[in-house]
Amino acid sequence: MKLLEERIKKDGRVYPGNILKVDSFLNHQIDVSLMDQIGDAFYEAYKDCGITKILTIEASGIAIACSTARRFGVPLLFAKKTRSLNIGNDVYTATVSSFTYKQDYQVVISKRYLSETDHVVIVDDFLATGNAMLGLADLCKMAGASVDGIGICIEKGFQNGGKQLRDMGYSVTSLAVIDSMTDDGKIVFRS
Amino acid sequence: MKLLEERIKKDGRVYPGNILKVDSFLNHQIDVSLMDQIGDAFYEAYKDCGITKILTIEASGIAIACSTARRFGVPLLFAKKTRSLNIGNDVYTATVSSFTYKQDYQVVISKRYLSETDHVVIVDDFLATGNAMLGLADLCKMAGASVDGIGICIEKGFQNGGKQLRDMGYSVTSLAVIDSMTDDGKIVFRS
Repeated sequence: MKLLEERIKKDGRVYPGNILKVDSFLNHQIDVSLMDQIGDAFYEAYKDCGITKILTIEASGIAIACSTARRFGVPLLFAKKTRSLNIGNDVYTATVSSFTYKQDYQVVISKRYLSETDHVVIVDDFLATGNAMLGLADLCKMAGASVDGIGICIEKGFQNGGKQLRDMGYSVTSLAVIDSMTDDGKIVFRS
Repeated sequence: MKLLEERIKKDGRVYPGNILKVDSFLNHQIDVSLMDQIGDAFYEAYKDCGITKILTIEASGIAIACSTARRFGVPLLFAKKTRSLNIGNDVYTATVSSFTYKQDYQVVISKRYLSETDHVVIVDDFLATGNAMLGLADLCKMAGASVDGIGICIEKGFQNGGKQLRDMGYSVTSLAVIDSMTDDGKIVFRS
């Protein structure tokens, strides 16, 4: 998605350790018009799959999931990262190792909102190690739901997550794939 | 907002301790079409205020903020609940006591994205004690930004937050105000 690559080049900031900050438009301050174009792209990729639900994980995925769910005309469901006191016991849980935060956490969804009749697109802002997406795919598996696609805004192509998910048979649509970043701020996109 | 009250009556579940679960449409699984109607309502309330930004707090506020920001044609900004390893030091922080989770947490925004030229509507799913809204209003004060409105989906009118915020001079627009709930599931809305 040319538009997203251009926005990353214009407004992204690269920090040592392969950290890309896109918090001016994607995951802290959010450009809703860009989210809508991202939602359009995921819709184009999976519009013929009979999608019934958009699944994401709090918090950065929610805005992307909103625009995507609106385009498909289906509800979105966001997995919570810790067991809320209020969420009840009737939940599916999976464990995820966070690359960013260097610790494990639980992802949790209520059993009420995902079942074997669901066809799901999972969306998120970043794909790096793929651990969060694997956790969400596990939740779908527990529910018997079909994961018809995984829609990613920015894939760090130099990390293993995308390859691993594709090798497992998942359809991964990444709108911008970064092959390399240098500490002085240069970003090379996969063509 | 009649539509929201009706949806709460239809799909909300009341649990002992004045807990109202609306996670089938508002804050776990999300009905995006309802979010858009909520965004329309907040737009109607504050369309003449020269709003430049919609502020909320992760995670439940983000979907509401998305629809509201789209309607205003401005960015949304969501405060994070803990200091991310990646967010940088150039942040405003305030402390919030959570009624739901019975503990204090920090709300954090980057100084880059809020300034004294901003006119802000703060939005969230629930208003009970008002602590989260006070924290977000504090962040705006630190930035010198004007809080032109606070848009709430469901106000628990039997708790003190709404009164406190209004007594402080804030314009609070609550789309559904609950005066009482009984353990057997009856919900009385303020007329």
